[in-house]
Amino acid sequence: MSERTARRGRDARRAARQKSDAVTKPYIIRNVPLLELASPEALEIIEANADTILEEIGIEFRDDEEVLEMLKGAGADVKGTRVHFPKGLCRELLKTAPAQYTQHARNSARNVEIGGNHTVFAPVYGPPFVRDLDNGRRYGTIEDFRNFVKLACMAPAMHHSGGTVCEPVDLPVNKRHFDMLYAHMKYSDKPFMGSVTHPMRAADSVAMCEILFGKEFVDQNTVMTSLINANSPMVFDGTMLGALKVYARANQACIVSPFILAGAMSPVTALGTLAQVLAEVLSGGAVTQLCRPGAPLIFGAFVSAISMQSGAPTFGTPEPTLVISAAAQLARRLKLPFRSGGSLCASKVPDAQAAYESANTLNATVLSGVNFALHGAGWLEGGLSSGYEKFVMDCDQLAMMQRLTEGFDLTDNGQAMDAVREVGPGAHYLGCAHTQANFETAFIRSSLADNNSYEQWESEGGLDMAQRANTQWKSWLAEYQAPAIDLGVDEALQAYMAERKASFPDSNV
Amino acid sequence: MSERTARRGRDARRAARQKSDAVTKPYIIRNVPLLELASPEALEIIEANADTILEEIGIEFRDDEEVLEMLKGAGADVKGTRVHFPKGLCRELLKTAPAQYTQHARNSARNVEIGGNHTVFAPVYGPPFVRDLDNGRRYGTIEDFRNFVKLACMAPAMHHSGGTVCEPVDLPVNKRHFDMLYAHMKYSDKPFMGSVTHPMRAADSVAMCEILFGKEFVDQNTVMTSLINANSPMVFDGTMLGALKVYARANQACIVSPFILAGAMSPVTALGTLAQVLAEVLSGGAVTQLCRPGAPLIFGAFVSAISMQSGAPTFGTPEPTLVISAAAQLARRLKLPFRSGGSLCASKVPDAQAAYESANTLNATVLSGVNFALHGAGWLEGGLSSGYEKFVMDCDQLAMMQRLTEGFDLTDNGQAMDAVREVGPGAHYLGCAHTQANFETAFIRSSLADNNSYEQWESEGGLDMAQRANTQWKSWLAEYQAPAIDLGVDEALQAYMAERKASFPDSNV
Repeated sequence: MSERTARRGRDARRAARQKSDAVTKPYIIRNVPLLELASPEALEIIEANADTILEEIGIEFRDDEEVLEMLKGAGADVKGTRVHFPKGLCRELLKTAPAQYTQHARNSARNVEIGGNHTVFAPVYGPPFVRDLDNGRRYGTIEDFRNFVKLACMAPAMHHSGGTVCEPVDLPVNKRHFDMLYAHMKYSDKPFMGSVTHPMRAADSVAMCEILFGKEFVDQNTVMTSLINANSPMVFDGTMLGALKVYARANQACIVSPFILAGAMSPVTALGTLAQVLAEVLSGGAVTQLCRPGAPLIFGAFVSAISMQSGAPTFGTPEPTLVISAAAQLARRLKLPFRSGGSLCASKVPDAQAAYESANTLNATVLSGVNFALHGAGWLEGGLSSGYEKFVMDCDQLAMMQRLTEGFDLTDNGQAMDAVREVGPGAHYLGCAHTQANFETAFIRSSLADNNSYEQWESEGGLDMAQRANTQWKSWLAEYQAPAIDLGVDEALQAYMAERKASFPDSNV
Repeated sequence: MSERTARRGRDARRAARQKSDAVTKPYIIRNVPLLELASPEALEIIEANADTILEEIGIEFRDDEEVLEMLKGAGADVKGTRVHFPKGLCRELLKTAPAQYTQHARNSARNVEIGGNHTVFAPVYGPPFVRDLDNGRRYGTIEDFRNFVKLACMAPAMHHSGGTVCEPVDLPVNKRHFDMLYAHMKYSDKPFMGSVTHPMRAADSVAMCEILFGKEFVDQNTVMTSLINANSPMVFDGTMLGALKVYARANQACIVSPFILAGAMSPVTALGTLAQVLAEVLSGGAVTQLCRPGAPLIFGAFVSAISMQSGAPTFGTPEPTLVISAAAQLARRLKLPFRSGGSLCASKVPDAQAAYESANTLNATVLSGVNFALHGAGWLEGGLSSGYEKFVMDCDQLAMMQRLTEGFDLTDNGQAMDAVREVGPGAHYLGCAHTQANFETAFIRSSLADNNSYEQWESEGGLDMAQRANTQWKSWLAEYQAPAIDLGVDEALQAYMAERKASFPDSNV
């Protein structure tokens, strides 16, 4: 390499370091084909078996008389809390659900498209514990919650602020939703999820969105996507149905999502699990459309397998990959957006097990065309723990996946025949004009992988990825800058919360 | 759960522990569709550009007059060492190469099918260093080499014994091939690779196989698959051509494989890299068919990207995934078996970086339908180090991938409708007849993942996966039993080696 070439390289490298290496689009627009692991024959078998489950076995809708009346009125056969659906009824009801919708963020540049050839990554949801290398595992607090919201706000390939990024266990159960919602609204300008643990908390979520976005805007647009789990097998409970009704009537999106540890909450086979998943989504999803035809609905499927030795949930194994891919196909056949996958693992720590399992799940998620990928970052220990290091490690992988979905560049520049002609046999491409011209965007750069020589790596302390991630999340939090929020809106949100909190006593139920 | 159900569960669990949880087939027969990331349009562009490279720019064949004569005789335009190929010539010559072949092992139950809808996993190839948790990184020795051969022999989803599982640096360069070949023959009964570092060493490899398999058998059957790297860009050197000629004339399989760090040895774009890869394989592969029409040939592509900041190779990033998938498509269009991928990473240690990167590469490898996956286990540090812990960790993942390729069970048992009817809404599947009947085979079990409760994991020492892998490889080596070998054959192999070793002085060239 000539001195001039070397200098040119150094200058370009310096410039590149000052630019973000990251993806910039607010959500993924796929430019690569789908992985579809199930044959049409397999899908038809699953669909026929789901119809059989709906008609012969039926689904339980518990503690919600109103929903039973709605289903009866729509033509279902209701006996007590057990509801049998004539063949085709659910599919007919679901025809009003949109194939795709926009979820608005308070910063419209952060709006996401959910459905079609789009993928949206959202953070881990639900863990009572948090973990970092310095303090190990402990109960989550509202400070941890805010930290994860801030990290998600900063991660370029994290498209969504999520919902319960960890449980703020230091706040009373019946009031923590106020502070969680407010954290998403105040510390991020990305879209978020609403509370589902009580219909009143769902109503509070809608009310706070009406303050943030305006009442009419909320009625006419979707500003929350919220998670309605089925109590698999084949049960919906009153809490989830109550939240579902609030959101659907308010034109807000519901993910109707069987939460399944296969072998415990569904059969031990992929096909059996899929038939049950489909039956649950079809029936629960139908309720959203009875509440408000056209309310956004996501076909959800959280599926893990249990260890047949211990009963413990396992992650990143082949059976859930098959289920994710096939369920995505079933959702596309229903013309519904699909939620599944993420960066799931059973490991307690951000080690190789965590990474193998998370990468297996994330590859299945992205390649199968999942539209809404909850648990995209931070998930540890089967969802019991939100990991700080794991969060930024996963975010790094999300950026990789976003680049993957951009696929091939077929332009002349992408074909690079000028470079091949310029360089020729036996030479190298480092200094050629094409390489220099594409220097900054050529390959996505991991912010956490160490690709240096062994000697350099060792001289820098011989750190593993988790140790580097420990440095990264701290530096992100140190550099965090809150997105501006209208002062009047902020005050109105705080006033609403204060008034509501004062109106009923604390409780941990 | 009733006491009776619980007891039934315990008994079944005990039985399951005594059985292998692993895959049993000697290679993968895919039962799932392919991931094909490149469009037909992209593939046609690549093919046209490869033709342009072959015709306009040409390929260098260095230090081998005989090959130049052969190519000239076949109709190529030879100017010095630069060979230009008229459009279509290479494709025409490649028509005699088989779409699939059997590589025989000395134990015929270990024979592998290479090509078609099969995938064969082989170990890491080439590292001068080895690493384990106890002793860190050090130069490899013949003892390390034998250890990796033994581990590969024992791993159920490792289908092949490979070649240079590590460099035995304690032996002279010009004689270590004897001990390496002998280790594969003696300590494993899986198929293996021959030496390529000198034509004489390739001839020794053939001679030793003639002792092991019989002279006529070797002429009529393929008993070695060996790695012929191109010196990318667009160069084949005399050493590799010499080995290629020995193997092809002996009816032994050659992997003609560009070894590319994109950005240094090929353009920085996927399409440019793919055109160059295709041109190199077409031209180098043609030589095998000129040596012996019908000699088995694998379309190879080792492609990584460099860091544009440091020039260091990176792994598990999106660009190589695109290249693996598209190159597999190009190979299928040529009706040639395809080699790529593996469990590649840049990490120096078996940490989360190693696992993310390896899993990304392995998912691309398996889903894209790679037929021969070299570097399937053990690869660390960009191929500079063979890791003991990494080896068994990767083997665990290979078993997962093998199960994934089995796809869906469409039988009545797979549909599991009896289970859904038996269990019904709100109950659990743990004790139902279908679960009990499928207990032992229901879900593949990782031998290294910890899925236990946090408390149990902590009480067992709070180990990470690498620490558990450290225990596993040691216990595998302790339990290793050599497959029986005919005493006369063993003595003949040793006599051949002794005679040959005595016939020329040691050298480290």
